[in-house]
Amino acid sequence: MINEKDCLYLKELIADAARVLIGKDIIEEYSHDELGGTYSKPDAVVKAVSAEEISAVCKYAYEHDIPVTARGSGTGLVGACVPVCGGIILDTTLMNHFLELDEENLTVTVEPGVLLMELSKYVEEHDLFYPPDPGEKTATIGGNISTNAGGMRAVKYGVTRDYVRELEVVLPDGRIVTFGGKIVKNSSGYDLKDLIIGSEGTLAIITKATLKLLPLPKKTISLLIPFPDISTAIKTVPAIIKAKCIPTAIEFMQKEVIEDAESYLGSKFPDSSADAYLLLKFDGQSTKEIEGYYEGAAQICLERGAKDIFISDTAERDETIWKARGAFLEAIKNSTTDMDEVDVVVPRSNVSEMVEFSHKLQEKVGARIKCFGHAGDGNLHIYVLKDDLTEDQWKNKLSEAMDDMYAKAKELEGEVSGEHGIGFAKKEYLNRSLDPVAVELMRGIKKVFDPKNLLNPGKIF
Amino acid sequence: MINEKDCLYLKELIADAARVLIGKDIIEEYSHDELGGTYSKPDAVVKAVSAEEISAVCKYAYEHDIPVTARGSGTGLVGACVPVCGGIILDTTLMNHFLELDEENLTVTVEPGVLLMELSKYVEEHDLFYPPDPGEKTATIGGNISTNAGGMRAVKYGVTRDYVRELEVVLPDGRIVTFGGKIVKNSSGYDLKDLIIGSEGTLAIITKATLKLLPLPKKTISLLIPFPDISTAIKTVPAIIKAKCIPTAIEFMQKEVIEDAESYLGSKFPDSSADAYLLLKFDGQSTKEIEGYYEGAAQICLERGAKDIFISDTAERDETIWKARGAFLEAIKNSTTDMDEVDVVVPRSNVSEMVEFSHKLQEKVGARIKCFGHAGDGNLHIYVLKDDLTEDQWKNKLSEAMDDMYAKAKELEGEVSGEHGIGFAKKEYLNRSLDPVAVELMRGIKKVFDPKNLLNPGKIF
Repeated sequence: MINEKDCLYLKELIADAARVLIGKDIIEEYSHDELGGTYSKPDAVVKAVSAEEISAVCKYAYEHDIPVTARGSGTGLVGACVPVCGGIILDTTLMNHFLELDEENLTVTVEPGVLLMELSKYVEEHDLFYPPDPGEKTATIGGNISTNAGGMRAVKYGVTRDYVRELEVVLPDGRIVTFGGKIVKNSSGYDLKDLIIGSEGTLAIITKATLKLLPLPKKTISLLIPFPDISTAIKTVPAIIKAKCIPTAIEFMQKEVIEDAESYLGSKFPDSSADAYLLLKFDGQSTKEIEGYYEGAAQICLERGAKDIFISDTAERDETIWKARGAFLEAIKNSTTDMDEVDVVVPRSNVSEMVEFSHKLQEKVGARIKCFGHAGDGNLHIYVLKDDLTEDQWKNKLSEAMDDMYAKAKELEGEVSGEHGIGFAKKEYLNRSLDPVAVELMRGIKKVFDPKNLLNPGKIF
Repeated sequence: MINEKDCLYLKELIADAARVLIGKDIIEEYSHDELGGTYSKPDAVVKAVSAEEISAVCKYAYEHDIPVTARGSGTGLVGACVPVCGGIILDTTLMNHFLELDEENLTVTVEPGVLLMELSKYVEEHDLFYPPDPGEKTATIGGNISTNAGGMRAVKYGVTRDYVRELEVVLPDGRIVTFGGKIVKNSSGYDLKDLIIGSEGTLAIITKATLKLLPLPKKTISLLIPFPDISTAIKTVPAIIKAKCIPTAIEFMQKEVIEDAESYLGSKFPDSSADAYLLLKFDGQSTKEIEGYYEGAAQICLERGAKDIFISDTAERDETIWKARGAFLEAIKNSTTDMDEVDVVVPRSNVSEMVEFSHKLQEKVGARIKCFGHAGDGNLHIYVLKDDLTEDQWKNKLSEAMDDMYAKAKELEGEVSGEHGIGFAKKEYLNRSLDPVAVELMRGIKKVFDPKNLLNPGKIF
């Protein structure tokens, strides 16, 4: 708990009273994230506007042993931004400025509170492209970097990590330091920048990021491909990869999830003939070039049982399909009373087995389980639904389902999280999945950055 | 120094006598790397054939406080593989096997001693592509990962780091642990894999690596573009990038270095009309597609003073040009008595200023300075030549040149090394260039992995 003196300090430091919330003034939202499974009230919230402010708060908190947790839009699903030990929340959403677009070095420099949807809009207006494309567009870029978010285009373009050139961060004791640079290559000491990426705010607070951009592809074409069943659909993916026609995205979706999205959005999906679909996206400089890529993929799908190939080459048609895809999480959430998620990643050759396993698990545990995700990069989003189960039933069934799914993912040479992170909710599963030697090294590194364990304590391990 | 008992242990552990060298049996090569500026004899050399052997040697050495240094082909330029504190060298060149090609996940798994030229040949035979392309093809992949080597194709494809999916390593105390996996996305704890990459063998010894592959581009075309002078040539590069026609490689070269290569190789370069050249490479699925990329770049070059555009679209012509480019280092080395190098990386918009500075420096310090490098990614290789200077003159002039160049690189927002690493020779410059806070964190991390400072001691910082 912070005391009277601490409150006074914060109020004096942040002259603007609207940017310091204490006790009862703190709205409930700051106690949880999007999924809500982890709940804990902060003692104070500071809406910071600069690295210097964050530095001053951290320095004070470090000297007075007060926990500090950074928070962006709160769109996380594993409780990473929830202050489980109380203390101060540093809300970075007001730090939402574009600082520089450097077209000669193809970089953009932003504050951490810039939203993903603002970032893509901004760079596309300059005919440039920020490839990472997580479904949650209202997430902040600071949050995306903190979880190393992946998104739909990872098959071709990789993940957030691949696009971070430089980070300015505040260390737990308030010192400001910059890792990386506006440079393409670097072999100058240990890679501290990549250590920060994906560390979920436990090592340092990101206050500025310089991101790598690409030229905007001139044309994209999507293929919606109906299959008789999900297994046939997903088993086609490694064959597409093996044939070396690399799409930008390969998503899989099932009728029941599409129907959820239809009723959530109140609009019809372009096709309802099949139980399962693959959705492929290709991009390039011209229609002709893209045709060269997708013809091989389409052929392979037809040979392996696809019922048809719908080519979507207009912006409107694309919008309908991808809007449905983008609404899956909200649609599933809307279809039940409560839910929890699994974000495992497995080698793409093992996706089919993981999906089949999660389907069969429904009967075993006696709860609905829905899934969708990134067939092309092996990252699945699987949701266990509470529906009308009692709290006790829910707790038991959820725990059984989670245990089984994470054990299966490990057996399939996968990892606990592809892009949502570990946060508070998945700590136990990471602990079971990782080599204890790796956990020991991670603990050691945490101690180097944060010897008093004050920055986002209680997370990851 | 190791003692009689230590020697006995090693000889018993490694049953094959030819794989354990002690004292006088150790050939001179193990005391230095390619450039030779750092010199120190090991007490013993073990040519390991498995992770288990490396683990056993490390465990013994850890218990007996003996320094251990891993070594691949010894093609480094900064003394990173030189055992400056003596002890045991672990030579990994016999661990040169391909363990798996996984076409469904587009990965290849190799031992660390596989040579870069063997790797590219192997995957290309399967119509696959390992993009990193450092000039030194006889380097081992273990060495490339340890320095995060970049190479010529970094403009389009990034560096070694971007292609490492999984690493098996031996920790200083002999424990074997695996970081990462055959997965595209990962957000499961701190990124230990990327910490190992570029750590120059100071945190762990790499014993196995799984690398990401891409489909092999069907066609490549190079443009050799003569310019009236080097400054005009290099200043064109940011304009090419800004115009969003991204080549695979953009190299710059000057007449005097080309002439060195001609006399070293005994063969003529295709053109001798100009003082300076840009060499651009493009790749894609068809000639037509590539034409779409390079036409814009060619136009920009002509508008900005290029004297001509030579298009090289046959394998033979390409071979002549790129063979010359590949011989630059050896050719310069061959043209003088001794030399030392600078491997700075600056934002690509600042390359021209850095090159001009190094040219002017020749007069100031009174020594020949030659340079070439990667204009597209900002990584320069600059060489100070001894010629007929006395040892004392050389020492002074070299030191002055180095001081000035690293200071200039820092001023231009660059870093000490783009791909060669810090090793032993560049420690002082890294120390001057990095924020002391970053150095403190790196030291802390070193201690977490190697509390007794026995693994490749005396390197980086």
